[in-house]
Amino acid sequence: MFRSEIKVLDCSIRDGGLINQWQFTDKFVKATYAALSRARIDYVEIGYKASMNQFDPKKFGKWRFCQDDVVRKVIDGVESSVKLACMVDIGRVEEQDILPQKDSPFSLIRVACYIKDIDKAIALCDMIMDKGYETTVNIMAVSTNLEREIDEALNDLSKTKIPIVYVVDSYGAMYSEDVTFLVKKYQEALPGKTVGIHTHNNRQLAFGNTIQAIIDGANMLDASVYGIGRGPGNCCLELLLSFLQNPKFSLRPVLQLIQEHYLPLREQIEWGYILPYMITGMLNEHPRVAMAFRDSKERDDYVRFYDMLTTPEPEEKE
Amino acid sequence: MFRSEIKVLDCSIRDGGLINQWQFTDKFVKATYAALSRARIDYVEIGYKASMNQFDPKKFGKWRFCQDDVVRKVIDGVESSVKLACMVDIGRVEEQDILPQKDSPFSLIRVACYIKDIDKAIALCDMIMDKGYETTVNIMAVSTNLEREIDEALNDLSKTKIPIVYVVDSYGAMYSEDVTFLVKKYQEALPGKTVGIHTHNNRQLAFGNTIQAIIDGANMLDASVYGIGRGPGNCCLELLLSFLQNPKFSLRPVLQLIQEHYLPLREQIEWGYILPYMITGMLNEHPRVAMAFRDSKERDDYVRFYDMLTTPEPEEKE
Repeated sequence: MFRSEIKVLDCSIRDGGLINQWQFTDKFVKATYAALSRARIDYVEIGYKASMNQFDPKKFGKWRFCQDDVVRKVIDGVESSVKLACMVDIGRVEEQDILPQKDSPFSLIRVACYIKDIDKAIALCDMIMDKGYETTVNIMAVSTNLEREIDEALNDLSKTKIPIVYVVDSYGAMYSEDVTFLVKKYQEALPGKTVGIHTHNNRQLAFGNTIQAIIDGANMLDASVYGIGRGPGNCCLELLLSFLQNPKFSLRPVLQLIQEHYLPLREQIEWGYILPYMITGMLNEHPRVAMAFRDSKERDDYVRFYDMLTTPEPEEKE
Repeated sequence: MFRSEIKVLDCSIRDGGLINQWQFTDKFVKATYAALSRARIDYVEIGYKASMNQFDPKKFGKWRFCQDDVVRKVIDGVESSVKLACMVDIGRVEEQDILPQKDSPFSLIRVACYIKDIDKAIALCDMIMDKGYETTVNIMAVSTNLEREIDEALNDLSKTKIPIVYVVDSYGAMYSEDVTFLVKKYQEALPGKTVGIHTHNNRQLAFGNTIQAIIDGANMLDASVYGIGRGPGNCCLELLLSFLQNPKFSLRPVLQLIQEHYLPLREQIEWGYILPYMITGMLNEHPRVAMAFRDSKERDDYVRFYDMLTTPEPEEKE
């Protein structure tokens, strides 16, 4: 599929950091940034920008905060034309953390929010755009919202200058038909804006659903190296590049990055096709219960996990 | 998706045997058969039926041969209403290996063939049907055939009594659009017959492509437990069951089977998302070169493998 409008965003460090509290070494991040630059990815999202007043820097690595000067030190000296991105959560970043874009290494700041916070997200995006950045709104967990809520949020967004709005399959619960339904709905409600897609791989559908979104017209595509990301992870960047026909992209640097850095990391921290996450995906639930289960002694007792999530508690019975 | 016509065939032992020369223990096969019986899968394919004149029984396990009396010993005593299936390859089975169905534990014998052998496959199916079995034709590697060849084969098949013809993505190379193209073509060329789908997971598209085939009308669906199968493996049975709405199917016995038998086996033999197979998939090639590479010392040097397959040899240059 070649469409010149298509942009690819790699979220390996940002989403992968959810596994290890963003404790990536400088060497690892620099290698990622350099390889993705050689692969000519459009955007590299290198972490969250969050206030140090809200998270303990002893517990969280530097990619939880993405302080401009700290980030600059790591990526300096890498030949690159990629645009640097970070993500912010509603209420976890303060205005003084965001410098004017001309003084910052970042080009794009993305805002993640649940649908109930859409108006807070719009206000945050306005501030980000006023400072000179590109921005997006990533509406999380939309598979759990009523159509009425989605329509209302899209109506609010349609009145803004925010250029890109994402369909996010937070729980890895969507089928291709759900992707089509939402991408088309976003497009109709948001004329002139770009629709993005961010998928999770609970049910091995992240790549397939991303392809479906492309077919339906999504032009901003998230992926991560070897699928790194919390739990099942994301759409694999190497798969996405193998599908996209744009000759500017190069797969080889990504393969090299995987064998030299991501395979060794995968030996230390886990992500991928793991049944408790497949079960939360099929039940359209947040993965937190699967994460807790994978940290317990019963981590491979899938039947027990399935029973826990599918057997009604006595008090729930009517 | 509920459609009463949909049938599920598990090919774990047959396709998984391609990894380990069908050296599964009786205990493992019995556990698989019992769990799939509890899950109420329609068909369980327990191996290949092949002549002992052609393969050395010292090198290959009993599921390479599927002799009726040997099979019966292993599954006897298991309460089950599943239909037992096996596969045959053109030229590797002799008529005396196939008893009359009334004397056999097998209900279904499937014929796998390349498109050039379609007329041999039809002759073999005729013999199988004459002996009282159900049968199918599984046209392998169809992603490498010209449309003219496919149309000619389908025309030949349309004149037979063979009730089921499979779209087989042997190389894990197809996108959902290819699946739609082929399933619709098969349906149009074969009125009154059932179309089947067998996918490989080289690019994490096996489940998504199976869903697409269901949407397009395929009613005979192959899958395997935890995706077991040569190289990247197949569509995961547990994923397929989580999608199908037919209340007769039960996911829980499959989860139990995975944790008790398939996870331990996965520690000994490999299948799943492995980059050399992803690369053969994207290049629409047989996995044999990836298999050889995974058996070599360079098994994780993905860049070298990619270069091997994508750099023209000097003598190939024009």
